[in-house]
Amino acid sequence: MRNIDESTITEAVLRSFDSCPDPRLRTVLGALVTHLHDFAREVRLTEEEWARGIDYLTRTGQKCNDVRQEFILLSDVLGLSMLTIAMNHAKPPGATEATVFGPFYTHDAPVLQDGADIAGGAPGEPLAVDVRIVSEDGQPVRDARVDVWQADDDGLYDVQIDALGDRRRARATFRADAQGRLRFRSIVPVAYPIPTDGPVGELLGAGGRHPWRPAHMHFMIHAPGHQKLVTHLFLDGDRWLESDAVFGVRSSLVVQLERPANGPALLSHTFVLAQEHAR
Amino acid sequence: MRNIDESTITEAVLRSFDSCPDPRLRTVLGALVTHLHDFAREVRLTEEEWARGIDYLTRTGQKCNDVRQEFILLSDVLGLSMLTIAMNHAKPPGATEATVFGPFYTHDAPVLQDGADIAGGAPGEPLAVDVRIVSEDGQPVRDARVDVWQADDDGLYDVQIDALGDRRRARATFRADAQGRLRFRSIVPVAYPIPTDGPVGELLGAGGRHPWRPAHMHFMIHAPGHQKLVTHLFLDGDRWLESDAVFGVRSSLVVQLERPANGPALLSHTFVLAQEHAR
Repeated sequence: MRNIDESTITEAVLRSFDSCPDPRLRTVLGALVTHLHDFAREVRLTEEEWARGIDYLTRTGQKCNDVRQEFILLSDVLGLSMLTIAMNHAKPPGATEATVFGPFYTHDAPVLQDGADIAGGAPGEPLAVDVRIVSEDGQPVRDARVDVWQADDDGLYDVQIDALGDRRRARATFRADAQGRLRFRSIVPVAYPIPTDGPVGELLGAGGRHPWRPAHMHFMIHAPGHQKLVTHLFLDGDRWLESDAVFGVRSSLVVQLERPANGPALLSHTFVLAQEHAR
Repeated sequence: MRNIDESTITEAVLRSFDSCPDPRLRTVLGALVTHLHDFAREVRLTEEEWARGIDYLTRTGQKCNDVRQEFILLSDVLGLSMLTIAMNHAKPPGATEATVFGPFYTHDAPVLQDGADIAGGAPGEPLAVDVRIVSEDGQPVRDARVDVWQADDDGLYDVQIDALGDRRRARATFRADAQGRLRFRSIVPVAYPIPTDGPVGELLGAGGRHPWRPAHMHFMIHAPGHQKLVTHLFLDGDRWLESDAVFGVRSSLVVQLERPANGPALLSHTFVLAQEHAR
């Protein structure tokens, strides 16, 4: 420990955690320190860059408040959120894939009945939604609870609109029927940019990146005997599908909107839930 | 970009920075993303651990204010600060080594004359300091500006003591004489813990680590024709030399305090400044 230099410091820091009473924490901290040091050595990090990094992380923390989580947004645009989801929600072949949860779910969505219109006055093109929920063997799943939420035609979720106060719209909680089927009305989701008025916006700007997410509707499905599914449906043809700012797109989740001659646009999809405990 | 999974996401994030107009930023972000993802895959990061990490970073940012920089402290205890110093201040053989700058330097230290007592009432055992400043060839360095600062017997720097207000003590700026020599009086530095009332203290506790730094006196030396030197002198025999909480100890900076039969303890050392532009 007295001969600290560029080549000895990593081992010294790793050894400083030798008395860590939690083996998992020691493993995680060891890997974190090793990669942090390797990163700094690999790029030959300058003191000015180190100082900019400290300032950036500080401002990211200070941008957070009750309704804004800038570190999650940073994790999202660096792909860490989606990587964590992908590692922890690997599904068996054929089961519907998971994607990012996002920051806009609320626990107080209205509980509505099959056939309801969830738009609640949110501006947008009318949409009919028709989904089925099945097991891996194709059998209907009974008693599924389905949470849906989405942005309006301005690309805003209800919680982002101060004038709405606590009023909720373009979101709902449903119970699918005994055949695992659920139909409701809503509006066609549109693409929108993630918030760019903070450090994450700076990073996207400096990095030559756009802030857009392709149009999508969020679904969270709970059903007895099955793994929870948190996912989106994306709309085929969206210009941002190839460059989602948070890396959430999986090809199996991209669906074609139907345009019947009569009646509203139709989004239909069959969700396949993985068995509980299956991988 | 539509087939995001655990194995494809890193390449997708790297490619998202393809249009970054600053090649250096692109290099740094690319290495950062690669190591961040490799870290997560290596430890199989769980969603709960990810959430704890987000919360930890958020609280670290929110602990920062005008007089507290918790992210620098985090960088210090993870060895990143010292690694950055070591990479950017490699000195030629024989030149005095650099170590961490620390958070306690101020720009308003009193300018004192050779022979002065810098303690200014700070509690501690009296100390005489006698240093010489030479070039790599052993020749005295003229006109060196020497900044010194240290903690008092309670392990506190003046800026940590509210009751002192703007009053400065146990710090000074000197001009060494034409022979590169400087003598002054102060107090014997003592070991002290870094602040543990924030997220960094939590990390040290959970990681089985102590917060102590071995006793040291800070020196910053500027002289025409020479590289700036930012360093400490540590006292031999200190119990924390082998486990400095911020990994700042280099064996060449550990000095033996002399204990003359008459008069105060004596700290003497010769600083060897590297030539400007030399490596």
